[in-house]
Amino acid sequence: MLRRVLFTVLFTGALPSLAEVSQGHISVVLLGATGDLARKYLWQGLFQLYMDQVSSGHSFTFHGAALRALEPGQRLMFDVLKTLACPPDESPNRCAVLKDQFLKLSQYHQLKTAENYTALNREIEMLLRQEGLKEAGRIFYFSVPPFAYTEIARHINSSCRPPPGAWLRVVLEKPFGHDLESAQQLAAELSSFFKEEEMYRVDHYLGKQAVAHILPFRDQNRQFLDPIWNRHHVERVEVVLKETVDAKGRTSFYEQYGVIRDVLQNHLTEALMFLIMELPANVSRAEEVLQCKLQAFQSLWGLEKNSAVLGQYQAYASQVQEELQKTRDYISTTPTFAGVLIHSGSLRWEGVPFLLTSGKALDERVGYVRVLFRNRAYCAQKETLRVAGHSQCKAKQIIFYIGHGALNTPAVLVSRNLFRPIMPEGSWREAVGQSELHIFGQPLSDYYVYSPVKERDAYSVLISNIYHGRKDFFITTENLLASWAFWTPLLNSISHQPLRLYPGGVENQHLLDFEMVSGEVAFTLAEPVELLKPSRLMPNDYRTIQSKFRHSPLVSAWSEDLISQLASDIEKTASRTVARSGQFHLAVSGGSSPVVLFQRLARHHYAFPWKHTHIWLVDERCVPLTDTESNFFSLHNHLLQSVRVPYFNIHPMPVHLNRRLCVEEDRGTELYAKEIVALVANASFDLVLLGVGTDGHTASLFPQSENGLEGAQAVVLTESPVKPHQRMSLSLPLINKAREVFVLILGKGKHDITTLISRVGHKPRKWPISGVSPSSGQLVWYVDYEALLG
Amino acid sequence: MLRRVLFTVLFTGALPSLAEVSQGHISVVLLGATGDLARKYLWQGLFQLYMDQVSSGHSFTFHGAALRALEPGQRLMFDVLKTLACPPDESPNRCAVLKDQFLKLSQYHQLKTAENYTALNREIEMLLRQEGLKEAGRIFYFSVPPFAYTEIARHINSSCRPPPGAWLRVVLEKPFGHDLESAQQLAAELSSFFKEEEMYRVDHYLGKQAVAHILPFRDQNRQFLDPIWNRHHVERVEVVLKETVDAKGRTSFYEQYGVIRDVLQNHLTEALMFLIMELPANVSRAEEVLQCKLQAFQSLWGLEKNSAVLGQYQAYASQVQEELQKTRDYISTTPTFAGVLIHSGSLRWEGVPFLLTSGKALDERVGYVRVLFRNRAYCAQKETLRVAGHSQCKAKQIIFYIGHGALNTPAVLVSRNLFRPIMPEGSWREAVGQSELHIFGQPLSDYYVYSPVKERDAYSVLISNIYHGRKDFFITTENLLASWAFWTPLLNSISHQPLRLYPGGVENQHLLDFEMVSGEVAFTLAEPVELLKPSRLMPNDYRTIQSKFRHSPLVSAWSEDLISQLASDIEKTASRTVARSGQFHLAVSGGSSPVVLFQRLARHHYAFPWKHTHIWLVDERCVPLTDTESNFFSLHNHLLQSVRVPYFNIHPMPVHLNRRLCVEEDRGTELYAKEIVALVANASFDLVLLGVGTDGHTASLFPQSENGLEGAQAVVLTESPVKPHQRMSLSLPLINKAREVFVLILGKGKHDITTLISRVGHKPRKWPISGVSPSSGQLVWYVDYEALLG
Repeated sequence: MLRRVLFTVLFTGALPSLAEVSQGHISVVLLGATGDLARKYLWQGLFQLYMDQVSSGHSFTFHGAALRALEPGQRLMFDVLKTLACPPDESPNRCAVLKDQFLKLSQYHQLKTAENYTALNREIEMLLRQEGLKEAGRIFYFSVPPFAYTEIARHINSSCRPPPGAWLRVVLEKPFGHDLESAQQLAAELSSFFKEEEMYRVDHYLGKQAVAHILPFRDQNRQFLDPIWNRHHVERVEVVLKETVDAKGRTSFYEQYGVIRDVLQNHLTEALMFLIMELPANVSRAEEVLQCKLQAFQSLWGLEKNSAVLGQYQAYASQVQEELQKTRDYISTTPTFAGVLIHSGSLRWEGVPFLLTSGKALDERVGYVRVLFRNRAYCAQKETLRVAGHSQCKAKQIIFYIGHGALNTPAVLVSRNLFRPIMPEGSWREAVGQSELHIFGQPLSDYYVYSPVKERDAYSVLISNIYHGRKDFFITTENLLASWAFWTPLLNSISHQPLRLYPGGVENQHLLDFEMVSGEVAFTLAEPVELLKPSRLMPNDYRTIQSKFRHSPLVSAWSEDLISQLASDIEKTASRTVARSGQFHLAVSGGSSPVVLFQRLARHHYAFPWKHTHIWLVDERCVPLTDTESNFFSLHNHLLQSVRVPYFNIHPMPVHLNRRLCVEEDRGTELYAKEIVALVANASFDLVLLGVGTDGHTASLFPQSENGLEGAQAVVLTESPVKPHQRMSLSLPLINKAREVFVLILGKGKHDITTLISRVGHKPRKWPISGVSPSSGQLVWYVDYEALLG
Repeated sequence: MLRRVLFTVLFTGALPSLAEVSQGHISVVLLGATGDLARKYLWQGLFQLYMDQVSSGHSFTFHGAALRALEPGQRLMFDVLKTLACPPDESPNRCAVLKDQFLKLSQYHQLKTAENYTALNREIEMLLRQEGLKEAGRIFYFSVPPFAYTEIARHINSSCRPPPGAWLRVVLEKPFGHDLESAQQLAAELSSFFKEEEMYRVDHYLGKQAVAHILPFRDQNRQFLDPIWNRHHVERVEVVLKETVDAKGRTSFYEQYGVIRDVLQNHLTEALMFLIMELPANVSRAEEVLQCKLQAFQSLWGLEKNSAVLGQYQAYASQVQEELQKTRDYISTTPTFAGVLIHSGSLRWEGVPFLLTSGKALDERVGYVRVLFRNRAYCAQKETLRVAGHSQCKAKQIIFYIGHGALNTPAVLVSRNLFRPIMPEGSWREAVGQSELHIFGQPLSDYYVYSPVKERDAYSVLISNIYHGRKDFFITTENLLASWAFWTPLLNSISHQPLRLYPGGVENQHLLDFEMVSGEVAFTLAEPVELLKPSRLMPNDYRTIQSKFRHSPLVSAWSEDLISQLASDIEKTASRTVARSGQFHLAVSGGSSPVVLFQRLARHHYAFPWKHTHIWLVDERCVPLTDTESNFFSLHNHLLQSVRVPYFNIHPMPVHLNRRLCVEEDRGTELYAKEIVALVANASFDLVLLGVGTDGHTASLFPQSENGLEGAQAVVLTESPVKPHQRMSLSLPLINKAREVFVLILGKGKHDITTLISRVGHKPRKWPISGVSPSSGQLVWYVDYEALLG
């Protein structure tokens, strides 16, 4: 039958000659051929591919597949195929002929058992043999729920691989996991069946014309963008997807995912990455794009609880109760609205806020990526005399308009006072008309507006790219995991975050407006109590317990609040001390607990008197300072790199002298002690920050240590029971000379030791931390609820 | 006569009782009593003082003085006094009585000779004796040209000082010099006659009600401003004084001064300082205010040629020609318009642009200080649905409106979406009406608007403050010199800067609009050639000569352009090297020439790959690193402090080991050589930056040096003929291993050595610089015109 088909094709004119057919044959297998996505987009995309590539020299067959038996499946599938539309720019005659061919080239298969797959493979092979065709490759499009992935993958891998010389491309649809761990697991499973280059993970946003044009735009307009594409010129970036629909009818999916997993982790993040990544020399080389994108992920600051504002439309709860048969008192914590503030630590973008926002039941349907530039002009003429459109004092923006909204078409907008962009002539054209429209605060006439010559559905763009093997339009495993690694901490930290309820649509008014405040976001309006059912009132979780611990003041709270409090207290101490003595000597410990503190200090305490602060180390591992194990390295990465402490005020421990580590005759301990005596009045630090180990050690003073627990030595070499064994540490007597000592204890893992030391007396040989007792200074314990209460 | 006067006063009611008169008597002497300023403002201010203070318990006499003889002077003066106006809020009766008294208390004196001053003093003494009054103090108001200051000051000091226990206040009017040097000279002269606390230097802007309220406003609104008064929230600050008048009739003054000396150096700078200085605990304590202001001056980045855009209205040239009897081809280089971009390096303000702008013959008369805040909000509702006035997405500003313009009254404006300010009820009230007005991009109804309950002329405010001894309203010597120290380098560097000609008034259109570009400013529109007479076309002075010097490439230009070029070349080398090898090893020299280069790199090259750059020292003085003599200290201050080079990549020379300096057995040179070998591939630096001394030394390799000119040692100790003698230096052989060597030579002082070395061969023992000859690397000479051409 196929031979006849191919010959027919050859006789219809403007169609491939026999010579071109020698490019080889491509078999496309659409798994889930009768599902929603296939119905709505995929078959149409495949038909479009066929229309576009019928003269490419490739021949095609299309295999729809599903679990359903042959006869009903076939019927269902052909019902879909009959509705395939001809694009408006295609001649109706040609389209009718091609549609007819497409139907003849399409076949339904039941794919359920291992035998089904073997049979499919046999059929393809036979067909190729019969027609005397060389095989170019096979595309398997997974339009099935993710739980089915593994089994299908196993079958394809074992039975349906094309012979050597022909390629295999498997196309996967999100969700690709639920968090980092599940994504890693899924990725690991898939990688046991497919090579990385065989997998095409779809994020259909990458097929949206405006999104797909971000990198080419940056590339083609390098001359204009190079000087301004940075923190000195960009005021903010907004990546927004607003929907008017709600989750009704989809709550069984939505309740598990929520808005962040549904669109922020994937669509909006990918669009943002196109914007902020360094531009590779060749933007169409997938590998270069990927490397730049991964670097951009690396540059992002970790998200914290307060990096996001979250909301839920009011009707959601009852929709969930109804659709998922929950009781009336069931409370969903799934956000349907999120605004997230992202920062990059790169030199290019440091300080520029990236705002990702999406929500259901909002006032309009629109998607855009907007770059707002700073106003860098001073206009000497008074406002009423300024010539519209040309004034440099008008806003400058570049907008990749994804679709819907006021424009109702994909578009690229560039403020006229910025530059006239270079756009590829064949595919984008300058739009005219609609000049009465106002958009992003300005009349449309203030922009150069370009829209696609031919509007194309995201899926046909992507299917074409699968055919062309353009992997830069797809999400690699590394890319996917980088994104999950970025989002998962936020998802974990907000799982019990209060949600702002909103009525939906235009009634939301200013309820969802939010603001950036020192690196965090918060809703602008205070919680409007009248909108809330009393049961929804969340406790104020920013509450610190003030009490006593080992006869000294105790501050306790949930860890994030505790860190905020501690950072503020350190800043207060620093300011007071600098006001008094002109400098502030701070000694900090290594370990993981201080890292969050360092980050907090770096990002939220810009009034900290860093210029007058001396930083000392409480203890250090005997490794080079550039070793990732080094306490100093961690301090440098998380704090020193971001603040301006003078070089001379930074005092790493001299564990690496004469290019060797902690050798006694290099007398590093003596050197450090001398430095302290020379710079710190009475060798009395203004503030020493300590931690506690599960064995009761503090600084690098371990139980039964021969050095440092008593005696005259200020700085000592010690042995740790864990690697790296050799350590340098301030001694207990020196620590106890400090004016203030803060001990920070975080986490469930420290609960036992916390309980223990709350009871024991002064036994430094057994529990060195019990020897911390400033002779004339103040000791304060900062213990989080988990460490304190278990 | 006076006794009678005083008694009359006592009988008019609501006037002082005898007991209150015991506060003592104040004599006010107005020098230049019949001059312009006195006529327009000062007498009215003194009358206002009298009205306000008549019940204060002080008695007054007012002595007008001038060079003119008694009779005509008297007549002239009383003609002025008769025109004194009663303020609208004063009861006409009381005012009439008071005016009558004021006239009776006023007297004219000819003050020309030493005898005149002695006579004045005698009269005052006699009067006090006759009336049995205790003397409180004397005010001498200098409303005379500055060339007369010294003589008058000498006379007052020698003949007119009040007796011990009574104070002397001399009031001085600008100009206070023409640049730093002349201001210092004038200040030194005055200080030989008066103590600092006796001098009241007037900047009448400090008496403008809106300006005078900046500090109190910041103080009273600390709770709102504390979190937002910083670089994280403020987008820009504009201090603007636009005038419609031109300099006609005043060119003899103006031609010498120009717009920067006339209003930027004093009025606008002072207003800016009130805004950006740290807020003292007590804003009415002059000494605290002064200290904070001086610190703010210290924090400002130095101005460079490109920190300013300059213009001149077209008619100015002919006005000068006419008024100053110049020929038709006389070209004035005096700017009548200036826009200046100022930056502060303080942690609070770093990166926030402060724009000072003023000009004559502009389109409107207006003065204001405007703080524009960043838009930190995301508004989830579409624009058409946002509720006006409440939206956080509208601009947020605080404006101290000095006067004139659309509002035509002094005012304080605070955007309603910011906060409702706390204003002192007695003196400021909320303004109503004029809601149709648009101001700074928004309807007036978007602001809280406050205006003074009683509008007061700047001079009456200042005269009242002189009376109250409020020195915070005046410019101290330190303050004055700090301001001149700040402005003088710009004034010097722009003396031959091209000026943009502008037609004046509304015709200026966008001609004077300017933009900030990487820390500099430039007019937005390209020079409109048709407006220029051909003779005014200035040569493009950014031109670098490219040629050969000692057989190697030579780059030459005026020093500022040369530095720009060199900085760009270094960045290019750095980027290329990092792209190739992942890191960039840069060795820099000490001395003064590199300082400007360091600053340029720090401020204009944000794309520099600092994170991957290692910084090495070419040479170092044997002093502690924190010594101001240390090369590293200078490098740190001018470069490292502002960029983010990782701590580990910074390699100061180990001149200070074991807490002692360059002791041979500490083996610092060996240590440094080992560090180089360990980190720099083949010990071949990517770029070595050298200078040349007038004796032909380079690095710290001096003529006839025993070490470093040859041999195997990579790092050596050397002796300098100048202090500090001991040095550490890279050796010539090591320098010559570098991939690139750039030699920078700046200034006339280097002309002779430049000429010499252009001729000599390879004679490193005599002229060490002649030994610089990279074995396989590239050598480039950067020599400015002054060094090259003399």
